[in-house]
Amino acid sequence: MAVNLPAPDPAALHPVPGVELGVAMAGVRKANRKDLLVMRLAAGTTVAGVFTQNRFCAAPVVLAKQHLRNDVQALVVNTGNANAGTGKEGLARAMQVCEALASHLGCEADQILPFSTGVIMEPLPAERIVAALPRALLHQDDWLSAAESIMTTDTVPKAFSRKLRLSAGPVVVTGIAKGAGMIRPDMATMLAFIATDARVSQRNLQGLLERVAERSFNCVTVDGDTSTNDSLILAATGQGAAASTRRDLLKLEVAVGEVARHLAQAIVRDGEGATKFVTVQVERGRNADECRRVAYAVAHSPLVKTAFFASDPNLGRILAAIGNSGVRGLDTASIDLHIDEVRVVHRGGRDPAYREEQGVAAMKKPEFKLRAVLNRGKAQATVWTCDLSFDYVKINAEYRT
Amino acid sequence: MAVNLPAPDPAALHPVPGVELGVAMAGVRKANRKDLLVMRLAAGTTVAGVFTQNRFCAAPVVLAKQHLRNDVQALVVNTGNANAGTGKEGLARAMQVCEALASHLGCEADQILPFSTGVIMEPLPAERIVAALPRALLHQDDWLSAAESIMTTDTVPKAFSRKLRLSAGPVVVTGIAKGAGMIRPDMATMLAFIATDARVSQRNLQGLLERVAERSFNCVTVDGDTSTNDSLILAATGQGAAASTRRDLLKLEVAVGEVARHLAQAIVRDGEGATKFVTVQVERGRNADECRRVAYAVAHSPLVKTAFFASDPNLGRILAAIGNSGVRGLDTASIDLHIDEVRVVHRGGRDPAYREEQGVAAMKKPEFKLRAVLNRGKAQATVWTCDLSFDYVKINAEYRT
Repeated sequence: MAVNLPAPDPAALHPVPGVELGVAMAGVRKANRKDLLVMRLAAGTTVAGVFTQNRFCAAPVVLAKQHLRNDVQALVVNTGNANAGTGKEGLARAMQVCEALASHLGCEADQILPFSTGVIMEPLPAERIVAALPRALLHQDDWLSAAESIMTTDTVPKAFSRKLRLSAGPVVVTGIAKGAGMIRPDMATMLAFIATDARVSQRNLQGLLERVAERSFNCVTVDGDTSTNDSLILAATGQGAAASTRRDLLKLEVAVGEVARHLAQAIVRDGEGATKFVTVQVERGRNADECRRVAYAVAHSPLVKTAFFASDPNLGRILAAIGNSGVRGLDTASIDLHIDEVRVVHRGGRDPAYREEQGVAAMKKPEFKLRAVLNRGKAQATVWTCDLSFDYVKINAEYRT
Repeated sequence: MAVNLPAPDPAALHPVPGVELGVAMAGVRKANRKDLLVMRLAAGTTVAGVFTQNRFCAAPVVLAKQHLRNDVQALVVNTGNANAGTGKEGLARAMQVCEALASHLGCEADQILPFSTGVIMEPLPAERIVAALPRALLHQDDWLSAAESIMTTDTVPKAFSRKLRLSAGPVVVTGIAKGAGMIRPDMATMLAFIATDARVSQRNLQGLLERVAERSFNCVTVDGDTSTNDSLILAATGQGAAASTRRDLLKLEVAVGEVARHLAQAIVRDGEGATKFVTVQVERGRNADECRRVAYAVAHSPLVKTAFFASDPNLGRILAAIGNSGVRGLDTASIDLHIDEVRVVHRGGRDPAYREEQGVAAMKKPEFKLRAVLNRGKAQATVWTCDLSFDYVKINAEYRT
């Protein structure tokens, strides 16, 4: 059960002029399941990308990074098989899919960005994908259906949309995503595709996307595992108003940021076995980097995460995780901790006015904020995470079927 | 159920001349339970220590580090309360215990090393400990009883002993330990006390202990959480043969290393919810540091640990964890992986000769070795860990009682 995450309302997902969407059932791993998405981009579209830092990255990621340098004509995404840990043969099969799609579209194979998600270290059944491509070229332009077609063990499709007005006119930003890293045995990948009809230079678009990623997808963690296939793509078709002034670019960045943050949080809300959505906010640190280190030390601690699951305001575990963050010179005797509105720790010790029932009540909610105030500077950082539940172990310990 | 860890045979635990042991029931947290240990050291004993790196360290750790500079007369250890997150009041109460013991022994309070383990952020009931001290001064000299008196949620007492011959005559090394970091709600601490009757200068002893810690207690992980109270102490009473030649010191280091490694592994075997004991060995790296990073990346990954629990030879998760270790320039396409005698990955891809039944059979055993061969140098490192089971979550999510 995802935490406070209803399915998207199709009426609220605005089509993006210049993007043509088509989905199909290719039977990559299971029959009768949407598992193939083609996202065709109008001529003149600029595309930016951010990819996994994992050294063990999948074949499609290797190709997508290379092909991003060219005029991109389309994205092709399959679920059911991640084409990771597949060596040269994996690269050849991903290329085979690019070539087939290119021949349909009348472009070069290196103008196609391929993405895969699903089982690791199994050969990609490229021939099934190639056979299904013509059906995925029937343009349905349905973003909800596109979101469904990239799901693996997600329980809810993830899509979000925003309208905004630039100086030259209105534009839309619409995006879809699928769950992160910590997926059912072998199903590992966070994928997100966002499109806008604004006109933006490739250089501006890449900078914008990197800043947005820092404040959205790079702020979430379920279990600290980074997958082999993680990819975030932003396409700007240029069919709508241009974003060329600084003010326009900033407005667009805010809107893309909202879409990205919604999608990133949706991934955590639908994290494996998640029963709680927790915002870890670290304030008054010397710099953003140390705030992030503290936030991640808390959000990655299995002892803290099981305490979240139990609605147990276990202050010792939280403080110990902070002490463990490796931040130089951190004085734990000056730290304050708040769970939502309740100050639980003052200056490194239990707040004298705090009663444990207050902490339990705050943590029993499906969603709460943990604030750690370091009291040594002006920087801050936020990380979104979930709890560690029985179901996390159950889902990940079930033998692959 | 601890993994392959029988209770120690009392007959195999050699007394250490110059060490007097006494235990008592002080009722720190629960009645009718051994929870107090006094370890009295003969005049002339040298003492070395290694302590938690957690910035949020407990009051007794602060004092023990200071008092280690003096001629140490005794150690005093209580369970049931960690005296951590207790501020100045915590320091005062730990000092109160030192003062009471010092007055019994006719020495100064700063010649006593205090240790505590148990609930965090609760005031230490120092008066109960002080009242029970006289009973803990009746010398029982029973190392098994001492090991039992420092248990919290350990299911098996941990003790180990070795005899060796130095050039000037025979000496013994005997040690006890209690479970690490990842203990039942709020019960966090790894404590280990090792003693020998060899005569060793303080300076040699400290160097020896630091090297031993690197290859024993610093090579284990259950869940990556470092506690607020972790302490490792080595005392050399000098009642037996002197270890002053290089050769003698090396022999002693080997014996202390064996005791420390046994105790460190015992902590993992008795880790919370552990059903598997796994040796992660990383070979042929450029240097020991990168080998350790890779080993810890594997040993800390919740996805890998749940796969251990499920006896699932999930190669993708292991390779993804290695790719995630942050080692610069690591080429995952040249990595080999072995589970015990079975080569499962060759040059970054599934070994063509490998059949999954072999991997499952190897991992079904309660104890196995995972070898990652990086093929880029001559260094190696080893880490011992356990799996992540339902019981880990159950134990840590149970509300404190």
